[in-house]
Amino acid sequence: MAILSGIHPVVEALRAKRALERLLVAQGAGGPRLQEIIDLARRAAIPVRFEPRAALDRLAGTSAHQGVVAMGAAQKYTDLDGLAPCEMLVVLDGVEDPHNLGAIIRTAHAAGAGAVVIPERRAAGVTDVVAKAAAGAIEHLPVVRVTNINRALEELKQRGFWIYGLDERGAETYDQVEYASPAAVVLGGEGKACTSRCGSIATRWCAIPVAGPISSLNVSVAAGVMLFEWRRRRSKG
Amino acid sequence: MAILSGIHPVVEALRAKRALERLLVAQGAGGPRLQEIIDLARRAAIPVRFEPRAALDRLAGTSAHQGVVAMGAAQKYTDLDGLAPCEMLVVLDGVEDPHNLGAIIRTAHAAGAGAVVIPERRAAGVTDVVAKAAAGAIEHLPVVRVTNINRALEELKQRGFWIYGLDERGAETYDQVEYASPAAVVLGGEGKACTSRCGSIATRWCAIPVAGPISSLNVSVAAGVMLFEWRRRRSKG
Repeated sequence: MAILSGIHPVVEALRAKRALERLLVAQGAGGPRLQEIIDLARRAAIPVRFEPRAALDRLAGTSAHQGVVAMGAAQKYTDLDGLAPCEMLVVLDGVEDPHNLGAIIRTAHAAGAGAVVIPERRAAGVTDVVAKAAAGAIEHLPVVRVTNINRALEELKQRGFWIYGLDERGAETYDQVEYASPAAVVLGGEGKACTSRCGSIATRWCAIPVAGPISSLNVSVAAGVMLFEWRRRRSKG
Repeated sequence: MAILSGIHPVVEALRAKRALERLLVAQGAGGPRLQEIIDLARRAAIPVRFEPRAALDRLAGTSAHQGVVAMGAAQKYTDLDGLAPCEMLVVLDGVEDPHNLGAIIRTAHAAGAGAVVIPERRAAGVTDVVAKAAAGAIEHLPVVRVTNINRALEELKQRGFWIYGLDERGAETYDQVEYASPAAVVLGGEGKACTSRCGSIATRWCAIPVAGPISSLNVSVAAGVMLFEWRRRRSKG
């Protein structure tokens, strides 16, 4: 269950006609902006309940909810069988930071990916922080959650995907490797190479050469560099 | 004056031998990790003072400082006159989010930029949040703070820089424009085009074409895509 709190996030969710299951308003809270939220919710037939402030504190996990908490439908995940054919998808192996996950979903969508695959464990799920960082892309790009990334890669391979992994020790560089279609681009978690975990799958490992000895890239920036190189080459034909 | 608080950030700063002016420890606080901090500070000849917890709360702006607050030297900025010659630098016009600023500094350094130029106003300064997101790049890449971005661009132009601006309405695309050297790459703030503000300077505006009608990129990811395209072309000669 997704929890939204605070006037701005809730009013935006209502305006975007997001599926909300219930709206909780703190007893005694008021004001024109809160009234607008109540009106919007009623017009959208979303049940509104007035509850003690302490109940909202508990749900929101903070007292900074400005007297309003909305409970939304949980993020819906797709499975690999439900995926439409696509030219490229992104597989994330252990991205734990929700801002990074959101930024990668946004970037993958902008680069033309057909889906993002994430593992169930040791990774961020699609929370509201992720949705916010994804800036709307979450509504358009299927997110596939799998029990085991290695098995998912094997399945993708059987379906004809070519696997390209980003790793700083990669033998090729991201701008020289020949991208075949369809492509599954594997990105590791923050600061961790994923070669070990995906090692058994035939994967072309690519590095992004950086300037200077201590340089490195944030995983969402690295995703942008690699995915837009894929896109640039594809548009060249 | 940069303020660091909490055991982990302070111990890391001490281990990295960062210039700290003073260490404040809450009266009555103790434990082996705090003792390690005190020992490290004394070995580095950094003055240690024991003060009431309320004084640390005020300085840290939070009570979650675990009994230790360090005051560091303020970030040193360079000016344009002090810059070493370089092939490319990055000019930021109003990036307000400190995580974005940090990620762009990290990315600019990794792409081989010689400096990052930021305005004094309506923008994030180099705080500890920025330094953390920059993952060490802040120690290596000069940050130039200018009163007026337009005037700085005019000065760069006079010094022979070619100005390339990233803007979604740009007439050229980032992967087709011919990059001349030295290049100043101008990036606008989050979700705001900077064409209006830098409009008077002859600038080649470039767009990053994205998939789908509503797609867009986070400014630090867009920076990565454009700067690494510059780098890719440069390495091709």
